[in-house]
Amino acid sequence: MTSASNDLRTFDSALERVAGGGLLSRRRLLGGSLLIGGAAATTLGIARQAQATAASAPWTVVAGEPVRGYGMPAAQEAQVKRAPIQPYKDLAPQFSFSGTPHQHLRGTITPNGLHFEVYHGGRPKLDPDQHSLMIHGLVERPLKFDRVSLERYPMVTQIHFLECSGNSFFNAIMDKPMQVGCDMLHGLLSNAEWTGIPLSVLMDEAGVKPVGKWVIAIGNDAPSVARSIPIEKIMGDGILALYQNGEHIRPEQGYPMRLLLPGYEGNMNIKWVTSLWVTDAPVHSKHESGEYTELLADGRTAEFTFAMGVKSVITHPSATLTMSGPGYYEISGVAWSGAGLVRKVELSADGGQSWAEAELVAPVLPRALTRFRMPWHWNGAPAQLLSRAADETGAVQPTRTAWKKKYDPSNFLHNNSIQAWQITPQGSVENVYT
Amino acid sequence: MTSASNDLRTFDSALERVAGGGLLSRRRLLGGSLLIGGAAATTLGIARQAQATAASAPWTVVAGEPVRGYGMPAAQEAQVKRAPIQPYKDLAPQFSFSGTPHQHLRGTITPNGLHFEVYHGGRPKLDPDQHSLMIHGLVERPLKFDRVSLERYPMVTQIHFLECSGNSFFNAIMDKPMQVGCDMLHGLLSNAEWTGIPLSVLMDEAGVKPVGKWVIAIGNDAPSVARSIPIEKIMGDGILALYQNGEHIRPEQGYPMRLLLPGYEGNMNIKWVTSLWVTDAPVHSKHESGEYTELLADGRTAEFTFAMGVKSVITHPSATLTMSGPGYYEISGVAWSGAGLVRKVELSADGGQSWAEAELVAPVLPRALTRFRMPWHWNGAPAQLLSRAADETGAVQPTRTAWKKKYDPSNFLHNNSIQAWQITPQGSVENVYT
Repeated sequence: MTSASNDLRTFDSALERVAGGGLLSRRRLLGGSLLIGGAAATTLGIARQAQATAASAPWTVVAGEPVRGYGMPAAQEAQVKRAPIQPYKDLAPQFSFSGTPHQHLRGTITPNGLHFEVYHGGRPKLDPDQHSLMIHGLVERPLKFDRVSLERYPMVTQIHFLECSGNSFFNAIMDKPMQVGCDMLHGLLSNAEWTGIPLSVLMDEAGVKPVGKWVIAIGNDAPSVARSIPIEKIMGDGILALYQNGEHIRPEQGYPMRLLLPGYEGNMNIKWVTSLWVTDAPVHSKHESGEYTELLADGRTAEFTFAMGVKSVITHPSATLTMSGPGYYEISGVAWSGAGLVRKVELSADGGQSWAEAELVAPVLPRALTRFRMPWHWNGAPAQLLSRAADETGAVQPTRTAWKKKYDPSNFLHNNSIQAWQITPQGSVENVYT
Repeated sequence: MTSASNDLRTFDSALERVAGGGLLSRRRLLGGSLLIGGAAATTLGIARQAQATAASAPWTVVAGEPVRGYGMPAAQEAQVKRAPIQPYKDLAPQFSFSGTPHQHLRGTITPNGLHFEVYHGGRPKLDPDQHSLMIHGLVERPLKFDRVSLERYPMVTQIHFLECSGNSFFNAIMDKPMQVGCDMLHGLLSNAEWTGIPLSVLMDEAGVKPVGKWVIAIGNDAPSVARSIPIEKIMGDGILALYQNGEHIRPEQGYPMRLLLPGYEGNMNIKWVTSLWVTDAPVHSKHESGEYTELLADGRTAEFTFAMGVKSVITHPSATLTMSGPGYYEISGVAWSGAGLVRKVELSADGGQSWAEAELVAPVLPRALTRFRMPWHWNGAPAQLLSRAADETGAVQPTRTAWKKKYDPSNFLHNNSIQAWQITPQGSVENVYT
């Protein structure tokens, strides 16, 4: 469906250009200042002129469906689902993950049904009544907690992103850019409102001894995923999460309980957590030494790289979506940083020659997805869209070339480099390296 | 499961009492000041001492389940569902609604599967590709929008509650308090992150004539639910919502598009909206004159009572939940106001004799659910819990008696009166009137 009138002169002349390639000022668009020369000059050129319709739609002449206990998305949106990835499908099908389809999402919250999954040994068929969390090791009083008693503890509610350390791995290791969507390219990233108990409350109850400097967190699944976490993070802002977007945490997120370490790489936020073992040193578990350690360009390794870097991705437009002809569009995407607040997101529509700052959707929260938006007039010519985020520490998202230089070519962890989208004259959107 | 040691002297002596009936200071609890007299004095008296366990859980010795496209809650939480209410089940089964189970939720976001439903004629089997929104009447250019073209418009993302004008109707009209849960009592209330297009952008494109003072919004369902909305609200903060918690709006919420009028009674936020008809006066549709008008004590009616009043409900503990013996608990609940920000929530544990201010979970957002929390030591004696919210306009939640005085006894709309919960020595929680 196209516009009856695709005449763009009106908003072209009304909206301030803020950078090359057609980037426009959102402030003037939403500030009600579009009215230039009277009411006739306000169209964005997208809508059709209304015409009277005669017949009633069939669904308006019959009664509809009744209520239901738990709702599901519209059947017509069945394509909005997580993208499954099973790299060793025959050898180890349980080592599987699925990505959030960010190209279909428009807010900041990820609905629970679409939160990304990463399994080292599949999703355990865990009996929550047989599950407990033990705090032991270098503590005064080893303690055991079940999910019923935990309901009585003081709780906090905070919105945080989770990102797998291996997110965006295709862009890291493939010589030629893969032509797949944001679900496959950047989907191991989600954002939820988490509710749970500050770990400091539970640790205080057990009484951490002064020699206790690390906590080894272990999951109640087949591979017993284990990570060493500095006691400062546990006692600082660590949470034992029991609820996700209000409801009980989902099975794929560690039901009935998981660690939530705001900003830290996903695998450290141990799911189905069953043991917090206080020690005086890290254990160098296979998950930290063997799986989540980066090989650097000089041959050394970077272990214990906890916080995810500052990063952003344009989700609209993005690969697998198409443009329906020249005219007005809104560029939109998400930005985040494991170090705290996103401070700004700059966009370029001309491959990095000029940049303008996007609007950040309030409230901007620390270690949470932040949506950004900017109006754009696409003139139908080839265009290259980039987004570049900066956080409150001053860190700026690197180019892919700069990021690759730091690592051995085989490394795919902690890839926070800039994503570039090439718009073709036909309106398709392609993943490109710059 | 109960605590091996239920000795409460430790936190009793460590935590400051802030009001009668055992209300405690959350600041001191979470401020790390529990350590009095050394590490031995920090227990809340809930956890058990840990003991070594021999056998591995059965789910840890086999591989788990693989990824799936769209996730669902744990099977063990199947009781967490919307409570269906069909007041005229035989006569008009499509006039049905279902309440959010707030007694099972702990955050502020309502997951999409649990957002409350109200149907005047059921959920239409609507074909989104055959649906359009028309803006017509007193405009320069009648316009028609389909869901594909709307994707190109500028969008906003905001968290807002929706509350049915008839929420809490059992407490309004039943002479004896109903012993049912928060889902039945107060469940026609939910909170989501909505993404959509400012209505002002669409109205500006059509060009509202100066004589256009009202907008008649009509839904694309069998009863054609219609409401008159002041142009100031439409042009102020009204949104055409297309997304809910990131994903496409759910069928029960008006897929593919609904009005979102922050703070206004639920039925005005027209679902499946298909027509915005600009007029110079309200139409007094049956839904506004016949269904959503309050009969006052003096025999007059109150029509066009748009914003929902300031209100709060304690969800933990609440009716149908039980207390597992004396000791430490956290009182938690939600507060909201159609007029803007919740300014404070006061709690009483002694039936209103003394009050203390609860902590509000940040970020406190206008016209959005705000969670509040306060530590509580229940000594096992009968106790009566109340919550009383106040908003930024200075409005304070009334008692049930004061609220009833304003209306004819038959009125059940806009009931924002204080909910009281009676705790019995046996640990059950009862709905009581005060």
